[in-house]
Amino acid sequence: MFGIPFSLYHGDDDIFTLLFSGLAISTIGFITYYFTKDSNKDIRKREGYIVVTLGWLVMSLFGSIPFIVHGSIPSFTDAFFETMSGFTTTGASILNDIEAMPHGLLFWRSFTQWLGGMGFIVLSLAILPILGIGGMQLFVAEVPGPTKDKIHPRVRETAKRLWGIYVLLTLLEILLLLIGGMNLFDAVNHALTTMATGGFSTKQDSIAHFTSPFIQYVIIVFMFLAGMNFSLHYYWLHRNFNPIKKNEEFRFYTFLIVAFSILITVGIFLQGNIGVEKAIRDSLFQVVSIITTTGFVTADYELWGVFFHTIFFLMLFIGGSAGSTGGGVKVVRHFLLIKNSALELRRLVHPRAVIPVRYNNNSVSKDIIFNIMAFLLFYLAIFVTGTIAMTLVGLDFLTAMGSVATCLGNVGPAIEGVGPTDNFAHIPDIGKWILSFLMLLGRLELFTILIIFSSAFWKK
Amino acid sequence: MFGIPFSLYHGDDDIFTLLFSGLAISTIGFITYYFTKDSNKDIRKREGYIVVTLGWLVMSLFGSIPFIVHGSIPSFTDAFFETMSGFTTTGASILNDIEAMPHGLLFWRSFTQWLGGMGFIVLSLAILPILGIGGMQLFVAEVPGPTKDKIHPRVRETAKRLWGIYVLLTLLEILLLLIGGMNLFDAVNHALTTMATGGFSTKQDSIAHFTSPFIQYVIIVFMFLAGMNFSLHYYWLHRNFNPIKKNEEFRFYTFLIVAFSILITVGIFLQGNIGVEKAIRDSLFQVVSIITTTGFVTADYELWGVFFHTIFFLMLFIGGSAGSTGGGVKVVRHFLLIKNSALELRRLVHPRAVIPVRYNNNSVSKDIIFNIMAFLLFYLAIFVTGTIAMTLVGLDFLTAMGSVATCLGNVGPAIEGVGPTDNFAHIPDIGKWILSFLMLLGRLELFTILIIFSSAFWKK
Repeated sequence: MFGIPFSLYHGDDDIFTLLFSGLAISTIGFITYYFTKDSNKDIRKREGYIVVTLGWLVMSLFGSIPFIVHGSIPSFTDAFFETMSGFTTTGASILNDIEAMPHGLLFWRSFTQWLGGMGFIVLSLAILPILGIGGMQLFVAEVPGPTKDKIHPRVRETAKRLWGIYVLLTLLEILLLLIGGMNLFDAVNHALTTMATGGFSTKQDSIAHFTSPFIQYVIIVFMFLAGMNFSLHYYWLHRNFNPIKKNEEFRFYTFLIVAFSILITVGIFLQGNIGVEKAIRDSLFQVVSIITTTGFVTADYELWGVFFHTIFFLMLFIGGSAGSTGGGVKVVRHFLLIKNSALELRRLVHPRAVIPVRYNNNSVSKDIIFNIMAFLLFYLAIFVTGTIAMTLVGLDFLTAMGSVATCLGNVGPAIEGVGPTDNFAHIPDIGKWILSFLMLLGRLELFTILIIFSSAFWKK
Repeated sequence: MFGIPFSLYHGDDDIFTLLFSGLAISTIGFITYYFTKDSNKDIRKREGYIVVTLGWLVMSLFGSIPFIVHGSIPSFTDAFFETMSGFTTTGASILNDIEAMPHGLLFWRSFTQWLGGMGFIVLSLAILPILGIGGMQLFVAEVPGPTKDKIHPRVRETAKRLWGIYVLLTLLEILLLLIGGMNLFDAVNHALTTMATGGFSTKQDSIAHFTSPFIQYVIIVFMFLAGMNFSLHYYWLHRNFNPIKKNEEFRFYTFLIVAFSILITVGIFLQGNIGVEKAIRDSLFQVVSIITTTGFVTADYELWGVFFHTIFFLMLFIGGSAGSTGGGVKVVRHFLLIKNSALELRRLVHPRAVIPVRYNNNSVSKDIIFNIMAFLLFYLAIFVTGTIAMTLVGLDFLTAMGSVATCLGNVGPAIEGVGPTDNFAHIPDIGKWILSFLMLLGRLELFTILIIFSSAFWKK
């Protein structure tokens, strides 16, 4: 629908099919309405899980129709994969010639990511905490967010504020990309997919197509912002920087990015044939892109040797901040588990002492840590199962691991057959369905879907 | 020392150097004495961690001297690696020509594994539970073992009984291997390393050298027995089979072996060129060998395609039963975490209900589950860190992962450059030291060593 002006302007032939996208958008509207409707009844948790899961599924089904009807992605499997990759803000693509796609469809493709990011912010900051998923209740502790018992009207208010920030940052990025020399179409598309930490590009070469350092730095900054907890943006927009500086997840997130970037800058600089600025820019871009789970590419990290290859594979498991549009395990979970591990050793030395994990000056209940550990173990179990499944489908071991890690983490590129310069077109259809499911699992923080498959869910 | 008769018989020139092994054995004697000495004072936990860690280290230092003095392993790094691989019952070897080694040293090499296995049984069933390591207190629940407060005289009594079983099973295996047509030297060596789930062989081709199906089946059976909780042997020797049949870890252990064997039998049979009996035997042998962390080889699973290749890599993480001589994560930990994962979903549906994990009809405290989760996460963190370190040393990604997984799990063979037909000779020296450390970490159930590195340990 919003793609119509672009289609008209460029004279593409996909105007009619774009109307189908309206159906997908209506689904988002319904989910939002469902969770924000003016009712005094508490949301029923079980319904919540199903509405969210089906919502994402139905969006992807409707959203894939434009690609099929237009004929630019004739296979239903491919179209569904691409759309799921969009709405889950993964960014894994099956397109072999992106530039050949009509502008309207390219815009729709970017827009799915932007909508998915918008949906996930509300999901992670307002809905999942209530559903008690993987310690998410923790991440809203300092946000003016919902309490456990009453959702309305807090969800609606929170959603409004966060979406305001989301729109504002997107507009700001469009402006800066235009200043950097991008045309309006590319600027809009890349701003949409940056803020969603999605990573769909209108160019086959991704951001490597735009050689301007200014453009690349702008995208680095906005990927970084999109990978932050959005409730923190609320603070700096009100010129209150203290809660940001003191936020332990934000500090660890920044530390990880700086540390990995320095390591890799030194590494590729020593390998030669690259200037200092370019080494810094390439490292920073790739690190921020993978850690925030965006997936844009300006340089092929697979050429940097087995050590950095390994590092990038492992970074697929970090994930953005909680409450960002980023996917993956999330920085705060790693932070709390690392802290807890150190304390677990202390607990062994002093078995009778009660030693809680502290986060942002609050002590975290053991139940939440327990829940986060369970989350990580589920994550790894799904990663392992997915990898086995993908080797059965015919992928080699590294490509199987890479494709599963990147889809489950909603990142985009990975290693080997699905490296930063490859795409997912060559993966057999069954594999694409498995990966689509993994993208959804990852996006909905595992439990939302797993719980529907549990027997306890269906018992009275 | 025990190798002297073999050396005399075969007329080798290594009699003198073998005397050094006496020093290594004395160390075991000291550790045993330390924990079983007739004193009424409770063992002091901190001392316990250090005595155990240093004990294994000192054994390996002394134990490597015979190889160096004799000159058959001239490099200290190699000799230490081989000896650590022995005492930790790993079975990873740097020997390129095993048959060229004198018999006395080969015997000493096998004997290090047998001693290591003996030490670990007492460690896991009597000492670690008291130190509160990784839920180990749970595994002795139904054994006539130590209580929390008094160790003596229970440790000594338990140790005596378990060692009796260990010796008995070793003798029985020697007898059966002799009946199968092995000579006395090979029968003794392989019995020693089977019961320790060690995997050192006197042949470069491992058990593939012995083509007799009878011999291979005997070894399958004894690997299986060695991978069981040794306290269960106590029951069947007294013709009391109920506690074995009802033991949930034993059932899961058997289930895993049967399930993987059937899967692989079908897989390799369908690939053709193999009879039914051989397909069953090859699958069963390799599965039992890897799951029990023995590491003997009769067939190269790397030739069975990427799917089974992946399956075998993942099996490196299963580990034997708790209270066996096997290494790795251990079946019971997986069992409890799988059970807990299912319950965690139920807890999300019913957040107010208290839903404990049950094991062998007892409910398991949340602290123990918490501790086991921490164990697994430490295990994975060490695996990841080790893999990064090994890629830095120059190994490719898969060889790095394989070498770390197999050493940390005390298995022996892995995948790629350290597959079932390769050895560890080609790994750079720094890599061998890293892997030696990982073998020790794995053997001492991580925490015993990690705790020494924690700041809490050294504070008053």
